[in-house]
Amino acid sequence: MADQSIKFKSIGPQNFVLPCPIFLVGTYSHSKSEKQESTGEDLRKPNIMAAAWATLCSAQPPAMLVAIRQARHTHKSILEHKAFTINIPDTSLLAEVDYAGIFSGEHEDKIAQCGLHAETGEHVDAPYIKECPVVLEMKLMQHHDVGTHTLFIGEIMDVKIKESCLDEAGMPNPTIMDIACYIPLLREYWGLGSFKAKAFGVGKTIASQKIK
Amino acid sequence: MADQSIKFKSIGPQNFVLPCPIFLVGTYSHSKSEKQESTGEDLRKPNIMAAAWATLCSAQPPAMLVAIRQARHTHKSILEHKAFTINIPDTSLLAEVDYAGIFSGEHEDKIAQCGLHAETGEHVDAPYIKECPVVLEMKLMQHHDVGTHTLFIGEIMDVKIKESCLDEAGMPNPTIMDIACYIPLLREYWGLGSFKAKAFGVGKTIASQKIK
Repeated sequence: MADQSIKFKSIGPQNFVLPCPIFLVGTYSHSKSEKQESTGEDLRKPNIMAAAWATLCSAQPPAMLVAIRQARHTHKSILEHKAFTINIPDTSLLAEVDYAGIFSGEHEDKIAQCGLHAETGEHVDAPYIKECPVVLEMKLMQHHDVGTHTLFIGEIMDVKIKESCLDEAGMPNPTIMDIACYIPLLREYWGLGSFKAKAFGVGKTIASQKIK
Repeated sequence: MADQSIKFKSIGPQNFVLPCPIFLVGTYSHSKSEKQESTGEDLRKPNIMAAAWATLCSAQPPAMLVAIRQARHTHKSILEHKAFTINIPDTSLLAEVDYAGIFSGEHEDKIAQCGLHAETGEHVDAPYIKECPVVLEMKLMQHHDVGTHTLFIGEIMDVKIKESCLDEAGMPNPTIMDIACYIPLLREYWGLGSFKAKAFGVGKTIASQKIK
């Protein structure tokens, strides 16, 4: 029997699920221009914005998506370059992440202002942030408007992990990575906790109970 | 200057971002049938599956999406009922969550097997799980195929939170909720950590440095 004393409070149709991730989306703000063709100067401007509405979305091809408000500067940049990066920050970068979420790249160089460093992607026309422990290079596959936002669905072309965040077996170590979560409604950044259980493992105890 | 000693290791195009959430998607497996019309018997069968690929995706209307593999039983159920629930489990339910991710509702009653209890949604034709601290009722708005998966995009019709998870001001308390995260690639469930910083707040320190 379920505990009959369980009571839910309805808070209405709010944007509340947890945890959300917190990522920096990296793009170039301008195309290579004709002027650049003649001078050789790179006029692309690297930019970042903070995004918490993102998820993996296909196993084959490996893909993920990020939902971005239609008014954002990054929205135009992704459509122009058909590419973006997902940069996963650690908790030491939360002030920079928050700054990148408050201000617009239309008016300032957020990367320089935050003291971060951009590197051009190896596989796509978008910059990644060298300070982040994990970086994904994304090639735009599809985009769909949903209410106030657009879903930008990208094929994952590569995942890069800082060598210092890998364990002896070459696997990523979430504790060393020290990644952050975002809690909507509260508008708070939280850390990741500790290991609880093996997936595709702990559930088998219930299956074996059934067999008995 | 960025630390020149930072080295990335490429692990190729893997499905790896973190943290992922971990949710139970609740659906009814069968429609009310004609037989039911005559007997009054409710033939809908409540079912759950585990899903880690999900995110908020629109502010207005409030919406979220979940990516579900096309072969899954839940895939058919969402299309049939145009509704689903998102149930956020706490870490005490991880064996049940894992079980719901390994086995299919086509062949068994996963909710009964896990000792969980389903309640019909107030706003949509889908069941929610009474043991979960947070429940969202979702009305299907759009769906799009992406590779191996389909994005089911739903309007958030209501969010319910267990009263025991609210603080004195009526706000959700993530520590009491004790929610879990999923780490792909490692295939591990982790807990949520602790508060780190205020969003739309901590970034202003960088803005004020700029003004100086």
